[in-house]
Amino acid sequence: MINSLLDSIQNLITLSPAEIDIVTSLFKEKTYNKGDFFLAEGQICKQVGFVTRGLLRYYINDDGEDKTYDFAQENNFVCNYESFIPQIPSTKIIQALEDCEILQISHDDLQLFYKSIRQAERFGRLVIEHVFIQTLQDLSSFYVDKPEYRYGRFIEKHPDLLQRISQYHIASYVGVKPQSLSRIRKRLSNEK
Amino acid sequence: MINSLLDSIQNLITLSPAEIDIVTSLFKEKTYNKGDFFLAEGQICKQVGFVTRGLLRYYINDDGEDKTYDFAQENNFVCNYESFIPQIPSTKIIQALEDCEILQISHDDLQLFYKSIRQAERFGRLVIEHVFIQTLQDLSSFYVDKPEYRYGRFIEKHPDLLQRISQYHIASYVGVKPQSLSRIRKRLSNEK
Repeated sequence: MINSLLDSIQNLITLSPAEIDIVTSLFKEKTYNKGDFFLAEGQICKQVGFVTRGLLRYYINDDGEDKTYDFAQENNFVCNYESFIPQIPSTKIIQALEDCEILQISHDDLQLFYKSIRQAERFGRLVIEHVFIQTLQDLSSFYVDKPEYRYGRFIEKHPDLLQRISQYHIASYVGVKPQSLSRIRKRLSNEK
Repeated sequence: MINSLLDSIQNLITLSPAEIDIVTSLFKEKTYNKGDFFLAEGQICKQVGFVTRGLLRYYINDDGEDKTYDFAQENNFVCNYESFIPQIPSTKIIQALEDCEILQISHDDLQLFYKSIRQAERFGRLVIEHVFIQTLQDLSSFYVDKPEYRYGRFIEKHPDLLQRISQYHIASYVGVKPQSLSRIRKRLSNEK
């Protein structure tokens, strides 16, 4: 399990054997059952996770209606940085859609990670730059793009997730009711 | 001029005398006249700037209508990171509202900065984390907050800019026509 995390880090920086031991000791294994909250509304996001098994959904509770804006699956980091970085309560929710195994590091231990790994600051900068660009693109898509386009984008970004996510949650990501999603799918398959 | 940039960097990290020389050699002084573009629409943002004199406006051209979303003044960094980090064309525009003096570093030289200054990666991570959080708050305010609230936020964030920015550009930031801004100002002053 730790190997996929180490690979993910070593894609960006080099770790010495001693540093591999430090990473291994700082990230703790945690299990979430389907339906459990990685981050509940109003909570402070206290950790960054790395998904080794399972699937989670990011959403906003908009006056009782769920608005899904992202998913995290195996080999993805999971975190609401808007809450995690300044350590303020989250307006967003992250919930397990399947039973999950997550390697997670606390805010305090992440500071230790930055101090004790030579290239950790570089790793942190590159990750946050990537998350920043991705978040801006997601947000702009959320406000601007048409449902057909968002469905196309979902298939492109998560081709392997169509079988793992309910029509209800895909519709919520696309920004339509489930019956409208069926119409979009029919229209797109007729166009082929 | 370079001293305010060095102070700004040294608020976050320590620089040795040799590193101060490197920073001084990597940032180049450039003058922009009022109306000049730091970044024009469709251009790739090729540098990060540090404003030592003057004022700039960030905006989007929305079908011929300007939508202002931020300002940069003395001792602020100025950049569209959405374009700068992945080096892709910008949908946003940054224009000088006054004659400006800017110390700027190119994308290539910034990589050199990261390589040659011991704590540069830490500095980069902290800056980008701050920009990330700030951008998310600005974007959310842009889409969600009412004009009254945005005007209050503008006064709070830029109390010294009320005299330097035209009513036209403040109205564009608040998201209303200039005549509506007068009504908002009147209402707020009556409430006091």
